[in-house]
Amino acid sequence: MCHLVQRSPLSFKEVREVPEVQQYEQIASHLRNLIREGILEPGDPLPSEAELCAAFDSARGTVRQAVALLRSEGIISSGQGRRSRVLDNVPSQSFDDIFSFSQWCLNSGIQPGQETQWVTKRPADAALAAALEIPDRAPVVSVFRLRLMDGQPAMVERLNYPLDTGQHVLNFDTDSGSIYQHLIDSGVDIDTATRTIDAIGADAEDAALLGVPEGTPLLRVRRRAFTTDGTPIESSDDRYLHSKASFTINSTRNSPSALSMISG
Amino acid sequence: MCHLVQRSPLSFKEVREVPEVQQYEQIASHLRNLIREGILEPGDPLPSEAELCAAFDSARGTVRQAVALLRSEGIISSGQGRRSRVLDNVPSQSFDDIFSFSQWCLNSGIQPGQETQWVTKRPADAALAAALEIPDRAPVVSVFRLRLMDGQPAMVERLNYPLDTGQHVLNFDTDSGSIYQHLIDSGVDIDTATRTIDAIGADAEDAALLGVPEGTPLLRVRRRAFTTDGTPIESSDDRYLHSKASFTINSTRNSPSALSMISG
Repeated sequence: MCHLVQRSPLSFKEVREVPEVQQYEQIASHLRNLIREGILEPGDPLPSEAELCAAFDSARGTVRQAVALLRSEGIISSGQGRRSRVLDNVPSQSFDDIFSFSQWCLNSGIQPGQETQWVTKRPADAALAAALEIPDRAPVVSVFRLRLMDGQPAMVERLNYPLDTGQHVLNFDTDSGSIYQHLIDSGVDIDTATRTIDAIGADAEDAALLGVPEGTPLLRVRRRAFTTDGTPIESSDDRYLHSKASFTINSTRNSPSALSMISG
Repeated sequence: MCHLVQRSPLSFKEVREVPEVQQYEQIASHLRNLIREGILEPGDPLPSEAELCAAFDSARGTVRQAVALLRSEGIISSGQGRRSRVLDNVPSQSFDDIFSFSQWCLNSGIQPGQETQWVTKRPADAALAAALEIPDRAPVVSVFRLRLMDGQPAMVERLNYPLDTGQHVLNFDTDSGSIYQHLIDSGVDIDTATRTIDAIGADAEDAALLGVPEGTPLLRVRRRAFTTDGTPIESSDDRYLHSKASFTINSTRNSPSALSMISG
């Protein structure tokens, strides 16, 4: 713990200020849109710093900040020794897409669906209690659904919430669509997500729902979600048929990758 | 004791004299180190902007640039409404780790190994020619190796290079360690990487080398590498036993994630 963080009363006043959209974010967003709309194509060089400074009437540091952000998102090349180029099109994923299978499908032109197997209030087992940082046997709300893409089985979804968040789920028709959207609409604070991605064989339950033999390779995405103050409010396990989903990421030299491979 | 307070203005003067490293990168790197060394722990707030400005003798825009970079790397929370917190420890992966299985193992305290099955010069088939953006049947150098973790089979590696890059591989003892390190040492320009991650069942070749039944779930990582001007110089396919590797990533609200899930 750094002693410096407790020093200046001035700094606390500053952090309470309502965060505004800063100019570098506006520039980054504008460049992202140019790329998304195909006005800047893969391989094209980005406008020069001088051009961006003139176009946005901004300081060089601000323009560099915007460019650094796009680089860390894997949208442009390192620019070492020459101008940054637009990389082959990897659409960045929005925070909402990370949580909402429904929205992710709709973005890809796919009709999402769900068949709820059960919604239950139950005591947390040791692993779930640890993941949610609640006492052993504390009540949780759990949802088990088969998810569909264009009417075909695609993913088995297991969601778990501590009781205060889970109350919102108990009041929701889980066959009607996005639980995540319902939570956001209910004012639940979801600030960060940690995802762990690996491969796993279908267990008996997965196999029956997905209509595949036991042991079929599935792409598993486990997710923990946290509030702004770092309290866990969701622990989930999504298992995709391997033909239905993959992940992609661009990385550039001198930009550490947010994605890490973990052994074991 | 916070390292921040020990930095003298003199050291920043020295930093400014190195033209290719910008100050925001220095600040980001310093904060990353504080987190890596546990001086800033998960849940701890980051020092305020004012404190960072004072400690680094820098402008507010520069400090914000550093903080935005850490946020996009998934190291700190969104900071919406309050100070950014350090997230649960997900070590960012260096660019070198993306390419070098050997270095990745060593970073995790694991002894890497390799058993080369073959190295060959051959004409590219249509798929490989497309991936490397070379004419059909143009010569490529391909390497097929079993990779070991602490002496145990862990991954099947298939590497493919266009001939000019591949020449460096033909001259290398592929049983001696990292091909990537050899390419870098040979002056090959590797600037960006695109990785696609999914699950797949072991084919007959995978199964024989890994000592598992055919169809066993594997975590597959396909990678394309590009030079600074966007020319493809590698196309590879790594398949990990599912017990040996997973991926993890943190994401924060209002920061697009560099990792995208793709349908199909």
